[in-house]
Amino acid sequence: MIDHLVTFGEALGVVRGRELSRASTAELGTGGAEANVAMAAARSGTPATWLGRVGDDAFGRRVVRELRAEGVTVIARIDPLAPTGLLIKELHPGARTSVSYYRRGSAGSRLDLDDVAALPLTPTTLLHVTGITPALSPEAREATLTAVDRARALGATVSFDVNHRSRLWSAEEASPVHRDLAERADILITGLDEVGLLLPRWSGGSAADAVDALGAAGHHHVIVTAGGAGVAAAEDGERESAEAVPVEVVDTVGAGDAFVGGYLAGLLRGDPLAERLRRGAVLGAAACRHPGDWEGATDLAGVGDADGDPVIR
Amino acid sequence: MIDHLVTFGEALGVVRGRELSRASTAELGTGGAEANVAMAAARSGTPATWLGRVGDDAFGRRVVRELRAEGVTVIARIDPLAPTGLLIKELHPGARTSVSYYRRGSAGSRLDLDDVAALPLTPTTLLHVTGITPALSPEAREATLTAVDRARALGATVSFDVNHRSRLWSAEEASPVHRDLAERADILITGLDEVGLLLPRWSGGSAADAVDALGAAGHHHVIVTAGGAGVAAAEDGERESAEAVPVEVVDTVGAGDAFVGGYLAGLLRGDPLAERLRRGAVLGAAACRHPGDWEGATDLAGVGDADGDPVIR
Amino acid sequence: MIDHLVTFGEALGVVRGRELSRASTAELGTGGAEANVAMAAARSGTPATWLGRVGDDAFGRRVVRELRAEGVTVIARIDPLAPTGLLIKELHPGARTSVSYYRRGSAGSRLDLDDVAALPLTPTTLLHVTGITPALSPEAREATLTAVDRARALGATVSFDVNHRSRLWSAEEASPVHRDLAERADILITGLDEVGLLLPRWSGGSAADAVDALGAAGHHHVIVTAGGAGVAAAEDGERESAEAVPVEVVDTVGAGDAFVGGYLAGLLRGDPLAERLRRGAVLGAAACRHPGDWEGATDLAGVGDADGDPVIR
Amino acid sequence: MIDHLVTFGEALGVVRGRELSRASTAELGTGGAEANVAMAAARSGTPATWLGRVGDDAFGRRVVRELRAEGVTVIARIDPLAPTGLLIKELHPGARTSVSYYRRGSAGSRLDLDDVAALPLTPTTLLHVTGITPALSPEAREATLTAVDRARALGATVSFDVNHRSRLWSAEEASPVHRDLAERADILITGLDEVGLLLPRWSGGSAADAVDALGAAGHHHVIVTAGGAGVAAAEDGERESAEAVPVEVVDTVGAGDAFVGGYLAGLLRGDPLAERLRRGAVLGAAACRHPGDWEGATDLAGVGDADGDPVIR
Amino acid sequence: MIDHLVTFGEALGVVRGRELSRASTAELGTGGAEANVAMAAARSGTPATWLGRVGDDAFGRRVVRELRAEGVTVIARIDPLAPTGLLIKELHPGARTSVSYYRRGSAGSRLDLDDVAALPLTPTTLLHVTGITPALSPEAREATLTAVDRARALGATVSFDVNHRSRLWSAEEASPVHRDLAERADILITGLDEVGLLLPRWSGGSAADAVDALGAAGHHHVIVTAGGAGVAAAEDGERESAEAVPVEVVDTVGAGDAFVGGYLAGLLRGDPLAERLRRGAVLGAAACRHPGDWEGATDLAGVGDADGDPVIR
Amino acid sequence: MIDHLVTFGEALGVVRGRELSRASTAELGTGGAEANVAMAAARSGTPATWLGRVGDDAFGRRVVRELRAEGVTVIARIDPLAPTGLLIKELHPGARTSVSYYRRGSAGSRLDLDDVAALPLTPTTLLHVTGITPALSPEAREATLTAVDRARALGATVSFDVNHRSRLWSAEEASPVHRDLAERADILITGLDEVGLLLPRWSGGSAADAVDALGAAGHHHVIVTAGGAGVAAAEDGERESAEAVPVEVVDTVGAGDAFVGGYLAGLLRGDPLAERLRRGAVLGAAACRHPGDWEGATDLAGVGDADGDPVIR
Repeated sequence: MIDHLVTFGEALGVVRGRELSRASTAELGTGGAEANVAMAAARSGTPATWLGRVGDDAFGRRVVRELRAEGVTVIARIDPLAPTGLLIKELHPGARTSVSYYRRGSAGSRLDLDDVAALPLTPTTLLHVTGITPALSPEAREATLTAVDRARALGATVSFDVNHRSRLWSAEEASPVHRDLAERADILITGLDEVGLLLPRWSGGSAADAVDALGAAGHHHVIVTAGGAGVAAAEDGERESAEAVPVEVVDTVGAGDAFVGGYLAGLLRGDPLAERLRRGAVLGAAACRHPGDWEGATDLAGVGDADGDPVIR
Repeated sequence: MIDHLVTFGEALGVVRGRELSRASTAELGTGGAEANVAMAAARSGTPATWLGRVGDDAFGRRVVRELRAEGVTVIARIDPLAPTGLLIKELHPGARTSVSYYRRGSAGSRLDLDDVAALPLTPTTLLHVTGITPALSPEAREATLTAVDRARALGATVSFDVNHRSRLWSAEEASPVHRDLAERADILITGLDEVGLLLPRWSGGSAADAVDALGAAGHHHVIVTAGGAGVAAAEDGERESAEAVPVEVVDTVGAGDAFVGGYLAGLLRGDPLAERLRRGAVLGAAACRHPGDWEGATDLAGVGDADGDPVIR
Repeated sequence: MIDHLVTFGEALGVVRGRELSRASTAELGTGGAEANVAMAAARSGTPATWLGRVGDDAFGRRVVRELRAEGVTVIARIDPLAPTGLLIKELHPGARTSVSYYRRGSAGSRLDLDDVAALPLTPTTLLHVTGITPALSPEAREATLTAVDRARALGATVSFDVNHRSRLWSAEEASPVHRDLAERADILITGLDEVGLLLPRWSGGSAADAVDALGAAGHHHVIVTAGGAGVAAAEDGERESAEAVPVEVVDTVGAGDAFVGGYLAGLLRGDPLAERLRRGAVLGAAACRHPGDWEGATDLAGVGDADGDPVIR
Repeated sequence: MIDHLVTFGEALGVVRGRELSRASTAELGTGGAEANVAMAAARSGTPATWLGRVGDDAFGRRVVRELRAEGVTVIARIDPLAPTGLLIKELHPGARTSVSYYRRGSAGSRLDLDDVAALPLTPTTLLHVTGITPALSPEAREATLTAVDRARALGATVSFDVNHRSRLWSAEEASPVHRDLAERADILITGLDEVGLLLPRWSGGSAADAVDALGAAGHHHVIVTAGGAGVAAAEDGERESAEAVPVEVVDTVGAGDAFVGGYLAGLLRGDPLAERLRRGAVLGAAACRHPGDWEGATDLAGVGDADGDPVIR
Repeated sequence: MIDHLVTFGEALGVVRGRELSRASTAELGTGGAEANVAMAAARSGTPATWLGRVGDDAFGRRVVRELRAEGVTVIARIDPLAPTGLLIKELHPGARTSVSYYRRGSAGSRLDLDDVAALPLTPTTLLHVTGITPALSPEAREATLTAVDRARALGATVSFDVNHRSRLWSAEEASPVHRDLAERADILITGLDEVGLLLPRWSGGSAADAVDALGAAGHHHVIVTAGGAGVAAAEDGERESAEAVPVEVVDTVGAGDAFVGGYLAGLLRGDPLAERLRRGAVLGAAACRHPGDWEGATDLAGVGDADGDPVIR
Repeated sequence: MIDHLVTFGEALGVVRGRELSRASTAELGTGGAEANVAMAAARSGTPATWLGRVGDDAFGRRVVRELRAEGVTVIARIDPLAPTGLLIKELHPGARTSVSYYRRGSAGSRLDLDDVAALPLTPTTLLHVTGITPALSPEAREATLTAVDRARALGATVSFDVNHRSRLWSAEEASPVHRDLAERADILITGLDEVGLLLPRWSGGSAADAVDALGAAGHHHVIVTAGGAGVAAAEDGERESAEAVPVEVVDTVGAGDAFVGGYLAGLLRGDPLAERLRRGAVLGAAACRHPGDWEGATDLAGVGDADGDPVIR
C-alpha cells in the first residue's frame, strides 16, 4: 500500500511571454519537473510533499507559495547564498517556445545529503525522482542516489522519470546515471526519445515496442510517453496504452510532468493501469493549453471527457 | 501554553481598483477578517488554521489557494449551493476607499454546527473569533457561540475582536452579542470607536482610558486600537501602549486584522506585551501600504525598524 | 405602428476573465438580458428605453453609463440600500464559460410597482419583458405582470422572451409564470430547449416544429431560437427561418439577447420577417465573438455579409 | 430663467501615458473644452447638449459614447471625409504634461453653418462658446459668430470662455476675435494670463484686478481664473472670489473646463455667485487629480468639503 | 555592385488595438513603408539608411529609437513646427483592420530638397523610393523626383514600389507620377491591383501576366506581388515566382514592405532571383502574424522552412 | 582632445516589479553599468561605443536593441553557449529595492582578450571601465587590464569608476584590483563609501575630504559621489562640488551611471568642471525618478533647471 507521494528537486521561477526583446512586460510563474508532478498529484487528491532549496528572494517565495497553494506540503531550505533558479520562456507564433535556463549555482542545484535527511520517507511512501536532479551538481547527484537507496532500504516504492536535459549534461555523461536510477526504481517512466539512453541497442520503434524492450531488460513497471502519439505501459505483465487527448496546444513544456502526476495519483488511489494512463493523458493535454508549466493542468474543462476543475480537497 | 491558532469565519473574494465605473480591468484578491488574521499570524511563524465554507467557484478556489500559499492550514467545506462572498473595493484619490459587500446568502454565511464540529481544538489552542461571523446568519451566530463554549470547556484560550459591521447589523442588534462574546473571551480586542458597544456608559476617551474602563468591567486582557492614534493594552494588570508606525497610506482596510495577527503570533511565541503591540503595529502599518486587505503585511521593508519580508518557515 | 422599444429588468455588473482563482486582474463590463436587448436595438437605430434599479455604487454607475453610451434612454432609480447585482464569468480554454450570480437582494431584484409606474408606455410602444425578472423576487414578479397588463390596456405591443434561469427558480415554479406571460404577449420568443416549459406535451423536435406547435397553441407571432442550429419563426401564418451565421466563438452568453434586439429593431423599422431573422442572426453571431455579454454585437465586421460597425445615429 | 446648456466645438480622441517613445501601451480617452464643460455640467445635474462633428472612426464613436455616458445629449454629424481630431498627452514625472494636437483638417474643425442650424436654441438656453472653435478654420469661425448672434436674437444667454490656444493661432490673429466674442457674450470667462488679449492696456495684476478692469470695460458678468491662485468674479456689481482647492495634482489639462461646467451648472440651478465659484473650484481641483481631461471631475471624494461622486440623475 | 540600401519617406507613430472606442488602453508602435523596408533589410544583414523628418515629440523619438534599435542608420531632421504623423489601426475579429491616418501637415510630409541633399548616395547605393512620398505634399514630390535623378546621375541603382494610397490622392493624380517614377527606376515593384496605374491598357490577369506586360513595356527588372496568391518577377529575361507562405494571419498591413526589404537584402547579398523572392515571401508572411506594421518580420520561427530569429549582426 | 567614448562590460536583462512573489506580470528592461554610462553619454550628444558579449536569446537581443535605440554604437559578440546575464529588481513601498543577479557563467562574464582586440581605440578615445568587469571572471579581469594598458599605450584617456560589487567579490579580493586600475586611470570616479578600498588609511569624511585625500595620493582628476549629499571633484588642482538635485525618488539603481555618463559627455564637449558636475547631477537625479536602471535619465523635465528631453542628434 502506498499512501503518500514524496518528491524533491529544483523548482524554478518562470518569466514568460511573447517578444521578450521588445515587450514592456512578461508574465511570472513557477516550474520545475518534480514540483509540477507534486502539484498535479495533489490537485488529483493525493497527499504530496515536495522538498528542495530556494533562495532568499522573490522567486523562492513564489515557488513556496505556489506549491502550498496547490495543496503540496513543502519542506524548503532557504539558501541565503544562492538565488532561486530561473527559466525564461519566449513564446513564438505557432505554439513554438524558446527556453533559457539560469540554474548554474542556483539554490536548487545545491541540494545535498542534509536535505535528503529531511525527506519524510516511510514504507508506504512513493518516492519520485527525475534525471534532472543528478545533472545539477555532484552534491545533487549524490543526494538523489542516497535518497533512492534510503527509500528502498525502508521498503518504499521508487519511481524514476528519465527527463534527460541535454543543456545540463551530455548523453554520454547522463546515460550511466539514468541506467543506474532506472535499475533501482520500481517504476520507470521515459520519453520514447530517451529510450536509447537506457537501452544501448535500442534501434527505435513505437512506444509499445519500447515498453516491450524495457520489459525484456528487466523493468516490471514501465511507462513510455510519446507526446502526440500517446503513451504505452506495462505493469507486471499487463499491457495498456492510451492515445493523446486532442487539445489546442499553446505550449507543451510541463505536459510530461502533468502526465506523471496524474498517473502516480491514480496509482495511489489504486486505479487500474488503463485508468491511470487516461488520467495522465487528460492532465498532460490540459497542461498544453496554457503558456505556464503546470497551470493548464488545473483546468480540465472540455479536455477529453473531463468536466471542469479537479476538486480542491 | 498555547501552541496553535485556530480561527473561522467568512473569507471573501475581492475585486478592487480605481474608477470601477469606467475602467476596463480591476485587480483580484481575497479578504475576510479571520482569514487575514490567520495569514498575518502564519507569516509571523505561528501554526495557524482557518476553517470556513466557500462556494464551488473561482473565488472559493482563490481563497483556499491564498490561505494555503501563506502557510495557513485550511479546513474548507465546499458549498455547492451558494457562491463565495465578494467584496468590491473602489479606491479614490487621496487614499479613500468605498466598499460594497456581496455576502447575503453566500457560502461563508452558511457556516453551521457541522463546521464547528470540525474545528481542531485542544487545550493548547488559541481560538480567535470576531463579531462579524455572528452577524452573517442565525446559524453562523449559533456556530460562533458554540465554538467559544467548546473551546472554553476544553481549557483552550479564546480571543474576540469586536469588528462591528454596521452594514450587516445595527448597533442595537449587535451590542448584546458583542458583550456576550467579550465576557466569554480570555482576550478582548476592540476598536476605540466600538467601546460603546461593550460599555453602555462609556462616554469617550483615549485608548488608554478605554483599556482602564474595560479592565474595570472585569476584562483581564484587553487591547484597544485607535488607528493612527496607536494602541493601548492591559494584561493581568500590566499596562502598555504603542504608537502607530508612520507609513504612506494606500488603504486602511485590513490593517486591524494584521495588527491582531501580529499580536496573537507574539502571544504564541511568548513575547512580552510591549513587543506584541509593537509587532502588531508594524504589521498593521505595513497592511496600509497596499490596496489589498492583507498583502501589505507580507512586506515589512522600511516599516518602523523592520527589515524586509517576514521569513517563510 | 410601433415607434419605440421599452424594456425593464435587472442590469448587472460583470467581472470576467480567465483563471480567476489565480489571475491578478479581471475585465469589467455590464450585462443583463433586457439591457443587452435595448443596446442591440439602439445600435440598430431604434429608440429604446431601459428602466431598472441600480445600487449607489460603481457598478450601478457603470450600468447607467454603458446604456447611455450605447444610445439607450435610461430611467434608473438609485437604491441606497442594496448593491447592483453582479455576474462573474470565468472563461476556460475551448470557449467554455462558468458563471456565478450575485443578485440575491440586489437593487435590481427590488424592482416594484413604483418603478413600473414610471414606464413611458404609449399605444405605439413595444414593451419587451423576459422570464428573468419574475424570478428575481415577488415584487419583481408583480411588477412584470402589471407592466404587461398596463401595456395591453393601452393597446401597446408586448414581446416576451422566456429566458428560463434554472439558478433562480425551478422549472416547476417558473413554468406557470412563463405560460401566463406567453399568453399575454403579442410576440413570443423562446429557446428550443425552453419549449417544454410552455407546452407540457412537447416531446422535442426542430425549431420549425416548435414554431408549429406554439402556433397550434394559439401564439400568432413566435420565434424559436436553436443556437448553432439557427432560428425559425412564424407571424400571422407566414413561416421563415434563418441559419446561424458562422463565426469563431469566444463566449455565447448574450447572443440570444443580441438576436432579440436585432429582431425587434427590424420590427420597428417595418422589415419583413426574413430580414428581421437575418439581422438578429448577424447580431447574435457577432455577440459570440467577444467575451462580454453585448460588446460583440457592436462590431459586425466580417459577420455574414455585414460590413463594419452599426452606425451611430 | 435658463433651463438648459448648449455648447458646440471640437471633441478629440486622447492618447495619453508616460514614456510614449518607449512604452508598449498608452491610455485612451476623450477631450475638447466644450465637451468637457458639457460633461461637468451634466454630472452636476444640468440638462446639457453638445453639438459637433466627428469622423467615421473609433475615436469619433468614443467621443459620442463618452458624452452620452455622462448624460450629455449629443448632436453629432458624422463626417466621412475627415478623421476625428486627436490629442496626444505625455505625462512626465512631477505632474508635467506635453501635448501634441492632430486637428488640422479634422472632422471637428469642419464645423459649419449647417451644423449651427441644428443647435437647439430657445430663449431659455445658455449657449456656451470658446475661443478655440474660431481658431479651427474659417468656417468654424463663421459658425461660432453666427451661433452667438442667433442665440442673442432669440434672447438666449451667451457665455464665452477665451481659451486662447497659441498653437492654433497667434495672439495677433486671435485678439480681435476674442474681443468681438467677449462683447457679444453675457458672461465672460477668461484666464488671468489671457486678459491682455481682451484689454490692450492691461499691465497685469490679480484676478480681482482683472475683474475690475473688465467691468470697467463694460462686462457685467465676468469670471477670471488664476489656477492655483484661485478665481475672482463679478456679476452686476457683486464681487466674489474663491481660493483654489488643494489637491495632489496629476495633470492640470481640463481643470478650467471643469470649473466652467460647475460654474454654469450653478447658474442654471440659481445658486448665488459665491456658491457657483466654490462648485467650480471643487470640480476644477478634482479634474487635476486624474491624467484624463475630464474624468477627475467625476470623483469629488475628499476634494474640499465635497463627499463622493456627483449623483447620476 | 551594390553595398548599401538608402531610403527616405515618412515614418509614423502607430496606435493600435481592439475596440478603440471603448478600450482603456491601446498598443503603441511605429510604421511607414520606407522605414519598414529599411528595418526588414537591416534585420536581414544589409547596411540600411533611412532619412526623414520627425516632429519634436514622443512619436518622433519613438520612430528614431525603433529604426536605430533594428540596426538602421537614421538621418532625421527634427521639425519643431509639425507633429510626427500618426496611424490609428483598429483590429476587428477575423483579422480585419481599419486604419485612420493623421499625416496632413505632419513633419514627415514636409520633406524637401534640403533633406534630399543629405542623402548619402554613392555609385554603389540602392536607393529605394515609394509612391507614397510624392503623395504627401508638393515639396515631397519634388524631393522624390530629385533624389531619383541624383541617384541615377551618380550611377546608383533605383528601386520603386508603387504603393498607391487612395486616401492621399486619386488614381488620376497618382498615375502619371507613378509612371514617371517607374520609368526612371531600375527595379519596379508593384501590387497586382496597382498594375492598371502603370499600364493604361492592362485588363487584368495573374502576377506572371503582369510581369510579362510590364516587361513588354520596357521594364527589365519587375516584381509583382499578389498577396495570398504569391509573387512573380522577371530580371533581365529570367522569370521566377514564389508562392505565399501559409501562416495564421493577424494583420496584413506592412507585409508588402517586409517582402520588399527581404527581396532587396537578397539583391545586395547577390542571391539569385528565386532565393530573393523566397526570402521576401518568408518575411512578408511573418509580418502578417503580428498586429504591428513590421514587428512580425523579426520572428521567423516556423514560417516556411525558416528557423528562428534573423540574426543580429 | 577627446572625441569619442568607448566602454565595455556586461549588459544585463532586467526583470523588475512589485510583489514578484505574487504578481502575474513584471516589467522588462536592460541594465549594466557601462551600458548605462554609454546611453547617458549618447543622449547627451557624445559619440559612444559599447562592446560586450550577449547570449543568443531574447535578453541579448533586447540589450543590443536598447543600446542602439539610444544612439550607442554596439560591438556585440553573440555567445551561443551562455545566456545573457539577468538582474531581478523587486521594488518595495518606500522606494526600497531588492536585487538578485544571475550572471554566473553568463555570456557577459565571458568577455576575453579577443573582445578587447575589437575595441576601436585611438589617441582621442576616452576609454571608460568599471570595477565590475574584473569581478566577473579571470578572463574578464585580464581583458580589463589589457584594455586599459592598450589605451594608455595609444595615448588615449582612461576613466575608471570603482563600482564595488560586494556580491561578486569581497573587499579583500577587490581592493588590490581597484587600486591597480585607479593608478592606471587618468580619471578616477568613486563613491564616498568606496574610498576605503582605494586608501587603506582613510578614516572617513566628506566627499570633499575624500577628493583631497585622493589628490594627496597622486590622483589628478578625481570625482567622489555621495548620493543625496552631492558630489565633489578636483581636476589639476581645481576644486568644485555640486549638490544633489532634489527629485521624488523611485529607485536609485543606475543613478551613479547616469551621473558618470553626463560628466564624461561634458568632458568630451569641453565643458568646465562645474558644468560637468551639474550635468551629471541632473542626469543622476532624473535616473532616480524611474524604476528602470537608465530610463529616467532620458527625461529631464523639471529636474533642477533642465527643461525636457535631451535632444536626439
